[in-house]
Amino acid sequence: MAAYSLYYWPIPFRGQFVRAVLAHAGASWEEAGPPLVAATRAAPPAEQPVPHMGPPVLTETATGQSVSQMPAILMWLGERHGLLPDTPHGRAMALKVILDANDVLSDMTRANGAQMWTPADWEAFLPRLHRWMALFEETGTRHGLTPAAGTLLGTGTPGLADLATATLWGTICARFPVLRPALDTHAPGVAALTDRIRALPEQAALIAESDAAWGDVWCGGQIEASLRRVLDP
Amino acid sequence: MAAYSLYYWPIPFRGQFVRAVLAHAGASWEEAGPPLVAATRAAPPAEQPVPHMGPPVLTETATGQSVSQMPAILMWLGERHGLLPDTPHGRAMALKVILDANDVLSDMTRANGAQMWTPADWEAFLPRLHRWMALFEETGTRHGLTPAAGTLLGTGTPGLADLATATLWGTICARFPVLRPALDTHAPGVAALTDRIRALPEQAALIAESDAAWGDVWCGGQIEASLRRVLDP
Repeated sequence: MAAYSLYYWPIPFRGQFVRAVLAHAGASWEEAGPPLVAATRAAPPAEQPVPHMGPPVLTETATGQSVSQMPAILMWLGERHGLLPDTPHGRAMALKVILDANDVLSDMTRANGAQMWTPADWEAFLPRLHRWMALFEETGTRHGLTPAAGTLLGTGTPGLADLATATLWGTICARFPVLRPALDTHAPGVAALTDRIRALPEQAALIAESDAAWGDVWCGGQIEASLRRVLDP
Repeated sequence: MAAYSLYYWPIPFRGQFVRAVLAHAGASWEEAGPPLVAATRAAPPAEQPVPHMGPPVLTETATGQSVSQMPAILMWLGERHGLLPDTPHGRAMALKVILDANDVLSDMTRANGAQMWTPADWEAFLPRLHRWMALFEETGTRHGLTPAAGTLLGTGTPGLADLATATLWGTICARFPVLRPALDTHAPGVAALTDRIRALPEQAALIAESDAAWGDVWCGGQIEASLRRVLDP
């Protein structure tokens, strides 16, 4: 019996942040699977494991406790598995980094597909994407991160902020390699940190497993198709 | 000298969540003011108090420490001022509620004004808005909230989740009274909780002060104008 059940679609996107933390913590989980994810999402609130608008939802098998919202799931796991800094400000900064990552996901999908990408809109967005990269880089720089070594918040070992950073930029650059040069330019320390985290055995295994199961998909749907059209015209 | 500086626009919207928690905690703060907020937001990341894409940013005077991202600021304050449940799951649920509130703000503004409201789009959105209300209500119901008494997460005293809930729905219904009947229908316990929180002396004083300073504005800009057009045609 797995320690957790994850309700999410068979794609990386937001769910991969939860998977990356579970894998790093050595916690076992099973995927609820698309039919149950869809049915649970559409169920009356009283019948949901936790009232939620959309996945991810994580349920702990032993207690039956559930949490929705990716950043809340990560903080729940981070507290339980010792993946957070040891001061209130450090913990708030870890959450801030996760929220920034979540905002980048929204920006890259134009609010979860509310609008499709056009070449002109993508061109207009690029300076903002580069600024996101620079904001991550500056956060790391203030805590001693260099391309050669370090973590995003200066913790001795990788924590939630590093896992979220590597999952964000690592998955984006793996799915859309044309974006990697920009990351190297605007966030060289973050690019190297991302590579180091992805080379950890648990992350490398997760990435191999996800790629084998789902192929090249990132967020899926028409919005991914429109993103691919502007990136590889 | 105030204990904190808040970088945010002279409107309620996301900043009001931070103000509500500061007021509840009895912590003094000063508003940085629009020129400094705008200059700080646009500054190179290395010159920002904390690297951020947009406000709110909260800076503690005594330490100079800063945090951006509304939910991260709230969790920082919540931990320091004892406004969080006493279990990891309870704390994750408090954050989940704050993130839901943040998502409602995004939905109501079509991703911070990425698109304007049309009557047809608003009609199509209404079932989702009502479901948001029902999700908040079900969260409270599971923790013993009734129209007569209780808190959203069953804590003995109001905490972050209650302040976020009341700030979300209370400000929306104050600015757009046409939406209050729907809250009463889909979330009667939350509507009553919202009224109880807003009647606390610190919240009542904050509301009176904000209304006097800024009038009827909610999120501001063209998106608020388009929202008012569909709500009061």
